[in-house]
Amino acid sequence: MSLTPLLVEPIARAALLEDLGRGGDLTSEATIPPDRQATAALIARDEGVVAGIEVARMVFELVSPEIEMQEILLDGARVHAGGHIASIRGPAAALLTAERTALNFLSHLSGIATATFQLVAAIAGTKARVCCTRKTTPGLRGLEKYAVRAGGGTNHRFGLDDAVLIKDNHIAIAGGISAALQAAKARVGHMVKIQIEVGTIAQLTEALEIGVDAVLLDNMEPPTLATAVNLVRGQAVTEASGRISPAQIRAVADAGVDLISCGWLTHSAPILDIGLDIQDAGKQPI
Amino acid sequence: MSLTPLLVEPIARAALLEDLGRGGDLTSEATIPPDRQATAALIARDEGVVAGIEVARMVFELVSPEIEMQEILLDGARVHAGGHIASIRGPAAALLTAERTALNFLSHLSGIATATFQLVAAIAGTKARVCCTRKTTPGLRGLEKYAVRAGGGTNHRFGLDDAVLIKDNHIAIAGGISAALQAAKARVGHMVKIQIEVGTIAQLTEALEIGVDAVLLDNMEPPTLATAVNLVRGQAVTEASGRISPAQIRAVADAGVDLISCGWLTHSAPILDIGLDIQDAGKQPI
Amino acid sequence: MSLTPLLVEPIARAALLEDLGRGGDLTSEATIPPDRQATAALIARDEGVVAGIEVARMVFELVSPEIEMQEILLDGARVHAGGHIASIRGPAAALLTAERTALNFLSHLSGIATATFQLVAAIAGTKARVCCTRKTTPGLRGLEKYAVRAGGGTNHRFGLDDAVLIKDNHIAIAGGISAALQAAKARVGHMVKIQIEVGTIAQLTEALEIGVDAVLLDNMEPPTLATAVNLVRGQAVTEASGRISPAQIRAVADAGVDLISCGWLTHSAPILDIGLDIQDAGKQPI
Amino acid sequence: MSLTPLLVEPIARAALLEDLGRGGDLTSEATIPPDRQATAALIARDEGVVAGIEVARMVFELVSPEIEMQEILLDGARVHAGGHIASIRGPAAALLTAERTALNFLSHLSGIATATFQLVAAIAGTKARVCCTRKTTPGLRGLEKYAVRAGGGTNHRFGLDDAVLIKDNHIAIAGGISAALQAAKARVGHMVKIQIEVGTIAQLTEALEIGVDAVLLDNMEPPTLATAVNLVRGQAVTEASGRISPAQIRAVADAGVDLISCGWLTHSAPILDIGLDIQDAGKQPI
Amino acid sequence: MSLTPLLVEPIARAALLEDLGRGGDLTSEATIPPDRQATAALIARDEGVVAGIEVARMVFELVSPEIEMQEILLDGARVHAGGHIASIRGPAAALLTAERTALNFLSHLSGIATATFQLVAAIAGTKARVCCTRKTTPGLRGLEKYAVRAGGGTNHRFGLDDAVLIKDNHIAIAGGISAALQAAKARVGHMVKIQIEVGTIAQLTEALEIGVDAVLLDNMEPPTLATAVNLVRGQAVTEASGRISPAQIRAVADAGVDLISCGWLTHSAPILDIGLDIQDAGKQPI
Amino acid sequence: MSLTPLLVEPIARAALLEDLGRGGDLTSEATIPPDRQATAALIARDEGVVAGIEVARMVFELVSPEIEMQEILLDGARVHAGGHIASIRGPAAALLTAERTALNFLSHLSGIATATFQLVAAIAGTKARVCCTRKTTPGLRGLEKYAVRAGGGTNHRFGLDDAVLIKDNHIAIAGGISAALQAAKARVGHMVKIQIEVGTIAQLTEALEIGVDAVLLDNMEPPTLATAVNLVRGQAVTEASGRISPAQIRAVADAGVDLISCGWLTHSAPILDIGLDIQDAGKQPI
Repeated sequence: MSLTPLLVEPIARAALLEDLGRGGDLTSEATIPPDRQATAALIARDEGVVAGIEVARMVFELVSPEIEMQEILLDGARVHAGGHIASIRGPAAALLTAERTALNFLSHLSGIATATFQLVAAIAGTKARVCCTRKTTPGLRGLEKYAVRAGGGTNHRFGLDDAVLIKDNHIAIAGGISAALQAAKARVGHMVKIQIEVGTIAQLTEALEIGVDAVLLDNMEPPTLATAVNLVRGQAVTEASGRISPAQIRAVADAGVDLISCGWLTHSAPILDIGLDIQDAGKQPI
Repeated sequence: MSLTPLLVEPIARAALLEDLGRGGDLTSEATIPPDRQATAALIARDEGVVAGIEVARMVFELVSPEIEMQEILLDGARVHAGGHIASIRGPAAALLTAERTALNFLSHLSGIATATFQLVAAIAGTKARVCCTRKTTPGLRGLEKYAVRAGGGTNHRFGLDDAVLIKDNHIAIAGGISAALQAAKARVGHMVKIQIEVGTIAQLTEALEIGVDAVLLDNMEPPTLATAVNLVRGQAVTEASGRISPAQIRAVADAGVDLISCGWLTHSAPILDIGLDIQDAGKQPI
Repeated sequence: MSLTPLLVEPIARAALLEDLGRGGDLTSEATIPPDRQATAALIARDEGVVAGIEVARMVFELVSPEIEMQEILLDGARVHAGGHIASIRGPAAALLTAERTALNFLSHLSGIATATFQLVAAIAGTKARVCCTRKTTPGLRGLEKYAVRAGGGTNHRFGLDDAVLIKDNHIAIAGGISAALQAAKARVGHMVKIQIEVGTIAQLTEALEIGVDAVLLDNMEPPTLATAVNLVRGQAVTEASGRISPAQIRAVADAGVDLISCGWLTHSAPILDIGLDIQDAGKQPI
Repeated sequence: MSLTPLLVEPIARAALLEDLGRGGDLTSEATIPPDRQATAALIARDEGVVAGIEVARMVFELVSPEIEMQEILLDGARVHAGGHIASIRGPAAALLTAERTALNFLSHLSGIATATFQLVAAIAGTKARVCCTRKTTPGLRGLEKYAVRAGGGTNHRFGLDDAVLIKDNHIAIAGGISAALQAAKARVGHMVKIQIEVGTIAQLTEALEIGVDAVLLDNMEPPTLATAVNLVRGQAVTEASGRISPAQIRAVADAGVDLISCGWLTHSAPILDIGLDIQDAGKQPI
Repeated sequence: MSLTPLLVEPIARAALLEDLGRGGDLTSEATIPPDRQATAALIARDEGVVAGIEVARMVFELVSPEIEMQEILLDGARVHAGGHIASIRGPAAALLTAERTALNFLSHLSGIATATFQLVAAIAGTKARVCCTRKTTPGLRGLEKYAVRAGGGTNHRFGLDDAVLIKDNHIAIAGGISAALQAAKARVGHMVKIQIEVGTIAQLTEALEIGVDAVLLDNMEPPTLATAVNLVRGQAVTEASGRISPAQIRAVADAGVDLISCGWLTHSAPILDIGLDIQDAGKQPI
Repeated sequence: MSLTPLLVEPIARAALLEDLGRGGDLTSEATIPPDRQATAALIARDEGVVAGIEVARMVFELVSPEIEMQEILLDGARVHAGGHIASIRGPAAALLTAERTALNFLSHLSGIATATFQLVAAIAGTKARVCCTRKTTPGLRGLEKYAVRAGGGTNHRFGLDDAVLIKDNHIAIAGGISAALQAAKARVGHMVKIQIEVGTIAQLTEALEIGVDAVLLDNMEPPTLATAVNLVRGQAVTEASGRISPAQIRAVADAGVDLISCGWLTHSAPILDIGLDIQDAGKQPI
């Protein structure tokens, strides 16, 4: 599980520039002596799963190459309230300039990892996996999908061009499930998986007759899901979706589906509260 | 209350390119006839306050200048579950290509506006206003602060360069409240407001002696807040902060502060669920 | 078959700025009266298949919104030497400023479409399809893969993140075919297809035992390919690759593979020579 | 002969991001242990001239600063089939992630250098030099013109703003050769060279009467070229152009022209096939 | 007083790319042996105040990380004609490639600092401070405002979003001073300062009745300014503006205003002439 | 004389975004009713020559496509103090948002055109032309060189890659004038002009013996310049340079040089003061 720095760097840089504006950090420049060094700790305020440590490191290093960050935990690790995530040392003003941007990334991604982990735990022992959607925050899709993996989940497609997902609106316009599926199979390349959304057992039957890589079983109750899974019998990957709450997810998993997708993971998970505590700000350079 | 299109356009464009990848919308291209037109409606699935309609319009128009969107509600309007937010018509494939990106913006910003509105309603009748922080999603600060205004809240600073906020870490390194405040007053321009974070009445007293535009009363209980407000007596703007929950906010407001800031509004508000319903997809061009 | 304008626009704009430099078109500015209008024709100098007409249109329109282009042929159409591809009218100076950039795109993409079409024709009547690779010109992958489709071919993956292709180097480092395949199947999402490169029947057998979506039959002679196809019997998509020349492709197709991939299509196809002929440059504005 | 890293870096970065998409290298991440190191060699599969080694190095270093590349050959060197171009060592996954992008640049630029070298060799002993045009691949003009120099050729202008080239369409609209030339001489700065395209001896005579820095002798047969060169007698640089094939180039050079320009070098030269061979992938870090 | 490298880097990079064009430094490449090292000095040709040393360093380092620059003076220091500002050593070709861009920044910013210093000196002993405006060179606002600080001046707002300045046109459209001020106070956040432009004592009186953070006393003669200052008595910050020349500034300051703003500092200050002298260009690498 | 909109648009957009920051125009949004229309005039406050009208138009149109601007004068026209340059109408808030950015461009470029015109007038009747240098404001080279043309001057090279200028530092390192010139002539293409800086008649003689397109006669007194011109006798273009003041330029021109270059035009010319006067701000939309 890793994040290519090339993908992270432009996002981290843009976030810093958004905060620095045209004039930079007026407060730190006015109140912190330029030669002051400091050491600090990233501390979880609540229990959760960490994700985004390398993003935070990138933010700190972009503000000053003199900052060094030593991680205590790796992405995917569980942390308790008060747990120590990483140590940082470097110029005090640079630490404070980078603080909010680094924490905004780290707490957001850790929030997603934590929410994913909670769902994964809720369905432990079943064959189902927790999966994300394209309901992500604009600009952060790659990072958010990484956070889902850090929390133990798996990813759905990254965008419109890496897999086909035929939804209700496509079906309606294309003239039905068979027509839509046949059109897709005729036109996309051999390395592209095709999934179709079905809301009823009849639709599922129609899709299976044409053949498809995966089916999105939308808004079905657990008994219907079980019927569907039984009908599919391994001919396609089965994915349940449709505003499935944490309270409902165990029943859905018990119905035997392969995947359960939750848009909530990336669009509404609260942050994991993480803070930066200054531990020492002596007058000597490191 | 408005959003300069120049500020929205690059964010909307980047979000679409993130979704389109290198290959574009494989599904719509494969299943939707290119000359098919459609009309659709943006419908709220839950009750809330709308924000981001112009962002959604920008997304649709970037995908196709042939799409026309007619808003029913304006940003800041309340909407009930099932409420009609806007009507859209244009090429069916373009509508479906733009759908998810438009909804990702609209539901995220409406979620922030809705959360803000709930807090505003909770403190109705007091003098306090609800305020946001810099705990925003990287890349979306301007939009998220706009959504707070749409929900009836007010904005704190946009970044590090438009106001001074001296926090506990600055105070510790600068050598105390007086030293930090005097340094800031000596160095920043006359159009920059200065605020300082204080955690005790003693610190507040020290700050007021030096003079400051605003005080951030951090993690004080309502009785202490009332004492603080009484001490300030209009010499500075008073802002309460520190993980204030919806359940606590009324008591905080009753203490008489001018502002209550909640990071939660921008970093953890759940989306307002909004969907796009295809209403008609005839074969004729408009 | 279409190209989202959002994906084309930044590439067309960058190409124009590369040509305009800092000072713009010195020649046209010095020699063409600013109010002179002209009509012109895009004419094929050789026989081939056209691709990139909408890219050319974007280039002309970016230089001047007053230019109007009327296509005679659509992408994918065959054109004979001397054939008329499109008509253009507008300010003469703008036409000449845009000419080279528009032609550079159109002739390059049409060259790829033409080369693809020739291979497609060579294997007509077999079940095999012609396919491209990631051996594309930096910056033009989406356009070049589109040109392959315009020529009647199909696309392999767009990049490193939309499908898994386990090549010899991965296999060597991962510790063999089974180890590599199992690692991939355990770690990637359900919407990602997995392909593995095999060079021998033994390797193919090992891969099929683990199960895989597609096999890349690398550098096999037609008889070996036929054996491989027979062994696979529909359990996976079969793709032949390895410097297959136009002279060899029919024999490869006759071996029964599903796909034949040729890096040559995108990295070495010569252009289709297309020119812009000024037809009339009267003194009156349109 | 050198390439400013500042000019190469954004092109190399964009090419990598094009390949990495939103999710990065799924295959290497899934199959290569993160601490595995490897050494590899860049090997020519065919005979040719190398160009772009520093571009390849930039690609590898952008993916990981831990990669070290040691060149064996320099740009402009001849390489035989099987020849060793450079050695590379570093994290195995990073090597494989960068491989295709590095090779796409290196083999494309080496293909241009090789084609140029072949023409240069064909006219050895004459005074003529081989020259490129503006018929380049969009986005790669600076790199492709560099590759022409690496192959022993020389460059025509880089774009529309660094020299004047009055072509047939300009002449027709400006009202003739004299009018066009006089307009250009009156309007451009003293550091801008002016060239005009002529197709007949009469046009050449007219151009020489006005005076011009260079003449483009378009589509003339060798005897006509010789007449033209004799007429010019050093008053202007003479450049022959017009779909000159490798078979014809010697006769053109023997006619005595100063330069022979071939659009083919940059728009249609096939790549020089270069591969990356993993030589060792031990378990120890370097 | 410092400049965040993150804010400087994209501006320095863009300036270099503007100069390098598509082909790089033809002259240095043609005339300077690639292994030649050199040492050079940045020397002031006139007397003034230095600003932008770190920008110059960034320019040199972007061209070659092998260049080392050792500053002799810091930003804000006075320099006499012939004074030594910094020493530089590194590859000779890279030094010459970077020279003009580095000097363009350094001499422009030092020109602004010098002009500011002259005004500051002219009003020494008064309470007034010299202040800049938004009349800056497009793209360089942050740097130019920094140069004003380096010269001893102070900054007005950085842009349209960090403070409110209600000017005559706003007042006219809003329906008068009271209406405009009340609208602004009702709508902007608590961290935003509000200033209003007044041209008469009557307007000033009206503004003070509503209350405002600062008043812009536009085009008032010194006696009127003195009356205005007397009327304000510390209720607002007083700023004089309106084409105030160096000859007039002392009289304006003596009138008792807090600030005197001069657009001239950033839009019309002549450069401080600074040159790069090559001191040694031996054949040995450093 | 024209400016390609493609070159202007990104510069105008960036300047607006620099001013708008993250929050947009707080003042106009707070004080101007959104439906208010206005008409305004761009008025010169001083006498001069106008340049940049199309840049101003681009700025206004980027803020709102509803703004219409009607020019009264064209670039290059003389304007008297109080002269009417253009009329503008559209939404009042958008006019005021764009005002400062539009004026910053227009007054800066008109300042350069005015300064150029003054020098051109000073040498009227001589054969000399006024020329600019590479001492331009970072980011604005193309615009500033255009303004020089608008003022009646001519342009030197646009950057390091469109012509060769061998300066004293190159000569010293290359080992003398002959060595430097021969190296340049051997290595650059046939469309690149070569100029060399000489400070003495002996150097000039050496340069002419090798042959060169242009000579830069640096810091020579008029009598020496006359000697140099006499020596050159049309074998090269002659350009005088070296801190030539307006008072000295006539004597320099009378010495017979072809060009006189002044860095001052682009790095130190004061702006031409231009203002925007609101003429009517009725309540009705247009």
